[in-house]
Amino acid sequence: MRRCDWNALDEQARAALLRRPAQRAGEEVSRAVAAIVERVRAEGDDAVRALGLRFDGIAPAALEVPEAEFEAAEAALPASLRAAIDEARERIAAFHRAGMSAPYALDTAEGVRCERILRPIARVGLYVPAGSAPLPSTALMLGVPAQLAGCPQVVLCTPPRRDGSADPAVLYAARRCGIARVFRIGGAQAIAAMAFGTASVPKCDKLFGPGNAYVTEAKRQVALLEDGAAIDMPAGPSEVLVIADAGASPAFVAADLLSQAEHGPDSQALLVSDSRALIEAVAERIEEQLARLPRAEIARQALRSSRLIEVDSIGQALEVSNRYAPEHLILALRDARAWLPRVQAAGSVFLGDWAAEALGDYCSGTNHVLPTAGAARAVGGLNVASFQIAITVQEVQPNGLREIGPCAVELASAEGLHAHREAVALRLREVGA
Amino acid sequence: MRRCDWNALDEQARAALLRRPAQRAGEEVSRAVAAIVERVRAEGDDAVRALGLRFDGIAPAALEVPEAEFEAAEAALPASLRAAIDEARERIAAFHRAGMSAPYALDTAEGVRCERILRPIARVGLYVPAGSAPLPSTALMLGVPAQLAGCPQVVLCTPPRRDGSADPAVLYAARRCGIARVFRIGGAQAIAAMAFGTASVPKCDKLFGPGNAYVTEAKRQVALLEDGAAIDMPAGPSEVLVIADAGASPAFVAADLLSQAEHGPDSQALLVSDSRALIEAVAERIEEQLARLPRAEIARQALRSSRLIEVDSIGQALEVSNRYAPEHLILALRDARAWLPRVQAAGSVFLGDWAAEALGDYCSGTNHVLPTAGAARAVGGLNVASFQIAITVQEVQPNGLREIGPCAVELASAEGLHAHREAVALRLREVGA
Ligand SMILES: [Zn+2]
Ligand SMILES: [Zn+2]
Repeated sequence: MRRCDWNALDEQARAALLRRPAQRAGEEVSRAVAAIVERVRAEGDDAVRALGLRFDGIAPAALEVPEAEFEAAEAALPASLRAAIDEARERIAAFHRAGMSAPYALDTAEGVRCERILRPIARVGLYVPAGSAPLPSTALMLGVPAQLAGCPQVVLCTPPRRDGSADPAVLYAARRCGIARVFRIGGAQAIAAMAFGTASVPKCDKLFGPGNAYVTEAKRQVALLEDGAAIDMPAGPSEVLVIADAGASPAFVAADLLSQAEHGPDSQALLVSDSRALIEAVAERIEEQLARLPRAEIARQALRSSRLIEVDSIGQALEVSNRYAPEHLILALRDARAWLPRVQAAGSVFLGDWAAEALGDYCSGTNHVLPTAGAARAVGGLNVASFQIAITVQEVQPNGLREIGPCAVELASAEGLHAHREAVALRLREVGA
Repeated sequence: MRRCDWNALDEQARAALLRRPAQRAGEEVSRAVAAIVERVRAEGDDAVRALGLRFDGIAPAALEVPEAEFEAAEAALPASLRAAIDEARERIAAFHRAGMSAPYALDTAEGVRCERILRPIARVGLYVPAGSAPLPSTALMLGVPAQLAGCPQVVLCTPPRRDGSADPAVLYAARRCGIARVFRIGGAQAIAAMAFGTASVPKCDKLFGPGNAYVTEAKRQVALLEDGAAIDMPAGPSEVLVIADAGASPAFVAADLLSQAEHGPDSQALLVSDSRALIEAVAERIEEQLARLPRAEIARQALRSSRLIEVDSIGQALEVSNRYAPEHLILALRDARAWLPRVQAAGSVFLGDWAAEALGDYCSGTNHVLPTAGAARAVGGLNVASFQIAITVQEVQPNGLREIGPCAVELASAEGLHAHREAVALRLREVGA
């Protein structure tokens, strides 16, 4: 891991230090995905099956998971795992429910009632990757807020296993979130199928969920196409920035950095500290812990682009963090809560030594679908509102029209929009104003 | 205007009827914009001035509006217009303030506190077009929520007038929203300048506001570029769908359709009614009112792609509307409020005969920056949250770790993420669990 002293760097070197690896898929991926999207749009299920055979080596004749497979999945799952999924779902639901917006109404003038009402997005599509391991936790993070929003049509796509079946833990988690329809489709073809609809897969208005470079590029492309679908957020490789003081546990910090690093070779893990001794101790612990990790090779690759940054104060560490805008921010500080007001941009914050980042991934209650690649400067993570439409409403009575109409007439005149002015003036004449 | 009977159409004809004109800029616009964006990014202010000279015929030496111009603008503005801007600002602020999210906290387990905190986006850029007329109302619709969110850096770009100055009404509205810095820059170069920053224009994290095809394409492009900026929403031509029953006023309905049509030749105006007599009367009134409109030529062009649709019931009219997902929906119905629960997707709804769409454009209190082109199926209009970041937080005590840690260990094991499991297990051992 690269170590450096922030105060020994000039502005250009600091910018370079905090730069993420290139986010966008290369031209080759982009062209391949465009071809997949176009083919699925044109040929539907046949294309989905042919592409599944090519990329996953398997193409279930029935793309949709049959009822019997859900039942078998539940029966096959260890009780401890079922209990953990149930427990995580409860806590995620409790936290997300507490954060739901309420509709509201306000009389902005006598006879003028303005409101904001909420509607679930009618048709949503969730993508749960499998890759190196199945991710029932992602099914919960997408499924719980969709259920709380009350989306009438929720479908989920997840890549089939070698034998053509879907992962039982993902199926169990999906059912616990009330998701009726799950499809054994992975990759860019899953995104295209949900964006445009096929004979099997219903068309969706908005797509959610993480994925590899192909999935991410497919989401980007369908969001730009007419009759495509909206998407949750631009997704990049996962990141953590840890701010630790001299009192932090080197072993805990090392474990959190490695949790991040094991996600994938392009994951980013940054440590910022005002203690050189802590930085050195963490570096040692990383080597020790790495030796015991099954995914050590992936972690080692990720650590190559990671950094250990020495600063002269915790205040300066916060400046570095706000500039980087990490997806996950761990404050391994003696007075972590006191520093929270200084956090300006981050996806999710972990306060103190006991708040392992992995708790947020699974079961503290917060959502693990978070902004990456600096998007945290302008956007937050997934929540129930991501599955809702906020619609404004205005109801105007004749006395309300008399009250606010002249203001609209004046502004429409100033803007040279005569039909706008007349639409109000005509009504004003009708009510004798 | 094209008239048709919904029930005489097959599925394909219905889809064609509700299809919007192509939204995306053509290849030529796209290439031209890419060149502008690249040039501004590389050459900064010099490029902005050169492009302003080429496209607007004017390039103020000082891009930023000097203090004296703000003072002159206020002095030059008629008192009635100042009062109308103030009045609209008050109502917009009242409605938006009432809809602001609050932070919240919940103990999801004993010793596990989860929170959502809110931060203003640090640096926002607003674009206020001028085009055929200045738009002080747009300055309010962008500036008021930015001010309520408390964004520390708000800049506004608006095209210069022939004499190089900015529109006085826009300047006055900007100042009433506490915006300190306004730049006399228009078009794609304004978007690029705010996305990447120049010597004069500070770099912004998120860009807001409507614009012509060049501005819209520039926003789309900078949102996709690394180190670019987030954007408010995909913006297309403005739209209205009016549902009117036999009791509606043909003159009012015609005036609302024409308000929409005068926005631009690509605006869409749809009328859906269960009364053929009403449809015929509206068509007549449109012709009468058109004759008196200064912008009749623009409106006539827009009306070519507009439609008068006959349905067999108001319930069916709502189905058509939900399928189209209009930016503006007017319910010119005897019992408009009773139909509101049936609205599933729309940007802003106008209830009853007196709620002219123009009131929402200016001063009812709702925001006029709304989803177009069917985006209302998945997203709402601009509000204070559009200028904020929601950050989740978790604080875990040793007893909280004992409570939720085992669940994370179980799930991490199931997902094959050993470093995640160890980050929690290590801490559990430390607290003796
Ligand atoms: Zn993780
Ligand atoms: Zn309008």
